[in-house]
Amino acid sequence: DSGMAGSCSKARFLSLCDYKTEKYIVAKNKKVGVLYRLIQLTIIGYIIGWVFLSKKGYQETDESIQSSVITKLKGVSVTNTSESGVVVWGPEDYVIPPQGEGVLFVVTNFLETPNQQLGYCAEVRSHFVLTVLNLTFCVFLSLGLMSGRCIVSDVNSTGTCEIYGWCPVEKKFKPQRALLANAENFTIYIKNFIQFPKFSFSKSNVLETSDESYLKSCRYDEQIHPYCPIFELGDITRRAGYNFQDMACVFQGGSVGIMIDWDCDLDKGYSQCHPQYYFTRLDTTACNRSVAMGFNFRHTRYFKHHTGEIHRSLFKVYGVRFNIMVHGKAGKFSIIPTAISVGSGLALMGAVTFFCDMVLLYLMKSSTSYRERKYEETRYNTLYMCLYIC
Amino acid sequence: DSGMAGSCSKARFLSLCDYKTEKYIVAKNKKVGVLYRLIQLTIIGYIIGWVFLSKKGYQETDESIQSSVITKLKGVSVTNTSESGVVVWGPEDYVIPPQGEGVLFVVTNFLETPNQQLGYCAEVRSHFVLTVLNLTFCVFLSLGLMSGRCIVSDVNSTGTCEIYGWCPVEKKFKPQRALLANAENFTIYIKNFIQFPKFSFSKSNVLETSDESYLKSCRYDEQIHPYCPIFELGDITRRAGYNFQDMACVFQGGSVGIMIDWDCDLDKGYSQCHPQYYFTRLDTTACNRSVAMGFNFRHTRYFKHHTGEIHRSLFKVYGVRFNIMVHGKAGKFSIIPTAISVGSGLALMGAVTFFCDMVLLYLMKSSTSYRERKYEETRYNTLYMCLYIC
Amino acid sequence: DSGMAGSCSKARFLSLCDYKTEKYIVAKNKKVGVLYRLIQLTIIGYIIGWVFLSKKGYQETDESIQSSVITKLKGVSVTNTSESGVVVWGPEDYVIPPQGEGVLFVVTNFLETPNQQLGYCAEVRSHFVLTVLNLTFCVFLSLGLMSGRCIVSDVNSTGTCEIYGWCPVEKKFKPQRALLANAENFTIYIKNFIQFPKFSFSKSNVLETSDESYLKSCRYDEQIHPYCPIFELGDITRRAGYNFQDMACVFQGGSVGIMIDWDCDLDKGYSQCHPQYYFTRLDTTACNRSVAMGFNFRHTRYFKHHTGEIHRSLFKVYGVRFNIMVHGKAGKFSIIPTAISVGSGLALMGAVTFFCDMVLLYLMKSSTSYRERKYEETRYNTLYMCLYIC
Repeated sequence: DSGMAGSCSKARFLSLCDYKTEKYIVAKNKKVGVLYRLIQLTIIGYIIGWVFLSKKGYQETDESIQSSVITKLKGVSVTNTSESGVVVWGPEDYVIPPQGEGVLFVVTNFLETPNQQLGYCAEVRSHFVLTVLNLTFCVFLSLGLMSGRCIVSDVNSTGTCEIYGWCPVEKKFKPQRALLANAENFTIYIKNFIQFPKFSFSKSNVLETSDESYLKSCRYDEQIHPYCPIFELGDITRRAGYNFQDMACVFQGGSVGIMIDWDCDLDKGYSQCHPQYYFTRLDTTACNRSVAMGFNFRHTRYFKHHTGEIHRSLFKVYGVRFNIMVHGKAGKFSIIPTAISVGSGLALMGAVTFFCDMVLLYLMKSSTSYRERKYEETRYNTLYMCLYIC
Repeated sequence: DSGMAGSCSKARFLSLCDYKTEKYIVAKNKKVGVLYRLIQLTIIGYIIGWVFLSKKGYQETDESIQSSVITKLKGVSVTNTSESGVVVWGPEDYVIPPQGEGVLFVVTNFLETPNQQLGYCAEVRSHFVLTVLNLTFCVFLSLGLMSGRCIVSDVNSTGTCEIYGWCPVEKKFKPQRALLANAENFTIYIKNFIQFPKFSFSKSNVLETSDESYLKSCRYDEQIHPYCPIFELGDITRRAGYNFQDMACVFQGGSVGIMIDWDCDLDKGYSQCHPQYYFTRLDTTACNRSVAMGFNFRHTRYFKHHTGEIHRSLFKVYGVRFNIMVHGKAGKFSIIPTAISVGSGLALMGAVTFFCDMVLLYLMKSSTSYRERKYEETRYNTLYMCLYIC
Repeated sequence: DSGMAGSCSKARFLSLCDYKTEKYIVAKNKKVGVLYRLIQLTIIGYIIGWVFLSKKGYQETDESIQSSVITKLKGVSVTNTSESGVVVWGPEDYVIPPQGEGVLFVVTNFLETPNQQLGYCAEVRSHFVLTVLNLTFCVFLSLGLMSGRCIVSDVNSTGTCEIYGWCPVEKKFKPQRALLANAENFTIYIKNFIQFPKFSFSKSNVLETSDESYLKSCRYDEQIHPYCPIFELGDITRRAGYNFQDMACVFQGGSVGIMIDWDCDLDKGYSQCHPQYYFTRLDTTACNRSVAMGFNFRHTRYFKHHTGEIHRSLFKVYGVRFNIMVHGKAGKFSIIPTAISVGSGLALMGAVTFFCDMVLLYLMKSSTSYRERKYEETRYNTLYMCLYIC
């Protein structure tokens, strides 16, 4: 056979410059044909609609956004408490840390324990510990070190332990109302500058204006003032779906995420790349999960008596933490991703042929005759062909 | 030829609804056949096993996790040093910054230089500078500004420079033991709340319980208490492979990473999405690289005499930095990634055919006959075919 | 027909072990052939050059770098102002926060308002508000709360409002020169330790040396000292394209990004994985956008009189923020990405065939004859074939 085939094939050397293409069988089967065309159209629609229009598969993208966030708060509040007296709170006090970073905490409530000094005093117990310690023996707690002695303050009490620590100890405190009542009206100015190093593109979320007064009076509005990144705190929580007073008071603080999203199609030019702001509450929201809620911490201010003794003010502060996150991606036309998108789309077309072949060869009535024609057997056909030629 | 072919082709118009499929040659070669099936099975195994089961290629994924971390430490320590006297350390003092962020520093050792005032004093030199400066001339160093004068404190010394700065200057200090000895027993409560915006899915790593006492007494345990995110510091370093005392004392501080990993298969439901904790040491570990080791910094507390003069306490603190990193991805079934996975898998099948063709056409004995049959030459065959018909 | 085809096909059962391969038509068309080969070569070039050599498509990559950054500044500066007197600034004062994190602020200018106490005083108005408020009525501003009274300080003035707040209020201040003049010469030591958990690979950017003096005297140099991560601040801004004095003084502060990039080819070994440093200015650069420029914030130091009254020093500080970002990826040979790269490359080859088919079938003169041969019609051909056999 191979000898015959060999003689048949004389002068049929395949030049490298000949073009080879798959031989196709045309199956005059309308059902499979329509099925095939339908799936093909779906895939073409997917490639054009999804890959090219929606996902912009013809663009090279840069997701390694470089971002700098600077924040500045404005607003003043006055509080009047029995412990602290009248206090005026400016941003230098109620923003922690004060250096204007992307993560900042705004105090809405506080409890000051002034004039603490190291010494011995009776501990204020938490209810939980009291029920456990019916036997009045003194364990290690978080406010100081036990002296070992027990103090029975009145006849009916189970007694408290004496501690060595900062005295007087902090009172039990459940914030009933937001002390910094107008924190809601404080404004936050979020200056964000971004760069896409791959495309040497940089932009800021602040209007490039020479009118100095603009940024002192404007408020962010998606339609009218998209480049005035100044928000009222109450407005931010409202956009996140919460009432500021509730968050500050009932929930004893919380955590809000401010997402700045830069989705830039650089084929459309500089002026079409805008920041989008999204606001979400970042901590647990359900009211009944009381244990895991709220946000508070303690910080101190140390003072020295003229005698040299140290005393301090302990502040337990409740408030809202703002976390500014910057995300972004930029895309620009490039030939390589275009080729990959087209190529992988066409590769998907191959899958259609495979699927329709299965239908044609195994599910159709006339499948045997198709199978014969599709799969040409080498040995026999070579024989037949050569037979007729010779 | 083309004329003949033209006459032959009458009434053979290709309707758009005809189904076209590649014509295949069946090579009755068992070796290549088995090879082909083997590779094909490998690829199918790879697609099902790797792409679908392991990588969940049928899922749309969201890796842009939104996360909020709040930390709170508990524990008290007492130190007694000649410079500072007896001091009680609470979280408000030993956690820096105190506001409960995802990156926090826990003091384990400290050196206080109290009562520093601006003035002239003799500088404490480092050994390194002394060997260089045998000629006792005064250069700019980091503790203050040179006055230009040299002070010979005793006969055998090489002399020190007088500086204008905060006096007295800080002593040389190499921590010999952890002053906050029980820092190992401090507990850290890590509250983490995550969101996958694409799927509107949110979860917390804290047990949703109404039992207030649970979070006051529990400790994390992967089996028993997976939703009690409270760890002892010593336990964290132990899980990272280090002894807390060694880290605090011998290494003079260090840096530990706490990774919370949320790998959520949302097809399985809310209750199957759990946080995983991983602990690693983030700084150099080998003991001999003494230069690049440890973690310390200085901070100050400023006081005012009643005369109005400023003085300060300088604290050099050593400790362990904890860096809480949250990673995560969520996946949910979607038709588009499924299509892409199947399509690219089938495309890979094409590569098998290509590879087996090479084997069949160039490495087999009977390759010439295969080549003839595979590559049908247009001109001749058209001729033959038409010849027989006419 | 199907009956005839059925009788023809006896004994032609397709064994599973037969190898099936597409039948190709050889079109002796040099133009299309050359076009085909050209595109094929381009794709092979793309696969080898881009996918394999440039993008290292044969490697498994790990982009989830774990990084720890510790910074330490050195340098002392002396300032002499009318408000604050002579002050020596060490890193514990001019670095905010002092704990050596990856984001740090270096003070270059400051305005101290000492001895502020709560009380009533006249507000210093900003120019902007004065022009608006020609009618001298008192609105809520950011420095304190209005008492409601207006103070006419001199005959020609429009009057100012009396506030209750921290008095005296801060002066208007536009920094004319950098007070911490030699901040340019301060050095920053950036200790970076990275890990690629997938490959258990870890490295530091600090030379592993036992010579303690090395890190006290060296300065970073890409050629000579690539593992001495100590930079002068002036050098960093210079590499970012700015003069430190301009940035500190004219621009009233700014923001500089220090990117450490670890691009590690682990096939080449430990010693070939080096850190690369990139420096960019992260805030707006154009001089005319005066509103959005600079970086300043206020912080306070609280003191207590021996009478128990609180007073404070308010510091408005200007400076440069350094933001150290660590990026990195590691790659190592793996069989799976290699298979995917090869497979998708070959799939792209299929696209070439498709494209050349279009040219051959629709753009060439002899396209009709090709079309006939490429698309073999099932019904007729089966008939002919069987005819000759029987």
